[in-house]
Amino acid sequence: MLSFTQADLAAMDKIYRLNLINSITGYKSANLMGTRSVTGTDNVAIFSSVTHLGSDPAMLGFVLRPTTVPRHTYQNLKTTGIFSVNHVHAGQIADAHHTSAKYPDHVSEFDQTRLTPETHEGWDIPFVKEAPVQLACRYLNEYAIKENGTLLVVASIEKIFLQKTLLMEDGWVRLDLGDVVTINGLDGYAKPTLLDRFAYARPKQ
Amino acid sequence: MLSFTQADLAAMDKIYRLNLINSITGYKSANLMGTRSVTGTDNVAIFSSVTHLGSDPAMLGFVLRPTTVPRHTYQNLKTTGIFSVNHVHAGQIADAHHTSAKYPDHVSEFDQTRLTPETHEGWDIPFVKEAPVQLACRYLNEYAIKENGTLLVVASIEKIFLQKTLLMEDGWVRLDLGDVVTINGLDGYAKPTLLDRFAYARPKQ
Repeated sequence: MLSFTQADLAAMDKIYRLNLINSITGYKSANLMGTRSVTGTDNVAIFSSVTHLGSDPAMLGFVLRPTTVPRHTYQNLKTTGIFSVNHVHAGQIADAHHTSAKYPDHVSEFDQTRLTPETHEGWDIPFVKEAPVQLACRYLNEYAIKENGTLLVVASIEKIFLQKTLLMEDGWVRLDLGDVVTINGLDGYAKPTLLDRFAYARPKQ
Repeated sequence: MLSFTQADLAAMDKIYRLNLINSITGYKSANLMGTRSVTGTDNVAIFSSVTHLGSDPAMLGFVLRPTTVPRHTYQNLKTTGIFSVNHVHAGQIADAHHTSAKYPDHVSEFDQTRLTPETHEGWDIPFVKEAPVQLACRYLNEYAIKENGTLLVVASIEKIFLQKTLLMEDGWVRLDLGDVVTINGLDGYAKPTLLDRFAYARPKQ
């Protein structure tokens, strides 16, 4: 086994450290977040930090650094209060990744990629048409992580749109049937295949 | 597409809703967290909420509900200040999932599974021997998410142990070379295969 101490990390080239530390917490969710500005420009941006926060009520969280790329997403969702979360499927990874490029405010990433905006009645935000799972979310709160200046945004999941074939009998959504991908580090995209599913674990007698 | 409203969610059977909402934020990291109690009992528990928080300094976060299963993990890491994060590989998923069973305080999950504790000098906590990525972490802070009573624990990554074959030239850790798995929902384990890796995205000219 190799090992790295905090001193090793501090001495590393910045990009090397970014690649390393972004990989070592494990696989991450791959989501395209859709927002609309007050002037009507649609924005879509890739996120890898969306996390389940609770089921009743249905809530998710995600982390952002307000000063880096997805700042338009944050500005828009703070202003309008709503955003969409769309799963990335295997055929979309190049376009999904390209949404992290820094375009000016008035440019929609939908116009710069083959991603297609989709609308759902009652929600004045873009969804990603090709996504097998689409969530309509509402901003609830944010927590400033004072240890490093990041922000945890907490949101409610208010409506779920889902490809029927993914939904199993007991409510489980089998993501590999929708070719949903996962992110490894900053820029690696991988496609999972289900290995197994287990019953609720009880102590051995 | 199927759709579910908040009213639909509220009317659902509890297990159905748990399965659904735990699946729809996308793939999750699969980590075994290792802690040691003040009386010397080792604990190891599966977590699916570990998230990258920052690279400089290296930090991660994870979410827990203090009243549910991984409460021994939380008690131990609050007392000792330290814990390990170990990636789950494909050969370990049944044992990794079994760590979620509710054993009494004095029982170590290492004795109830084929997971093997490993020690690293200077760290008085168990690591998981079979894990291709192992992190020694220190508790920094916690944030109470008042919207649903969960807790975001923030920790520093103080030492990294890593199988040499996973580390690429630019610091990226290619997880599929270690057969690292990802979690789909509460109890689905999937093995990702790398599709592609992209350069830093820049606006099209």
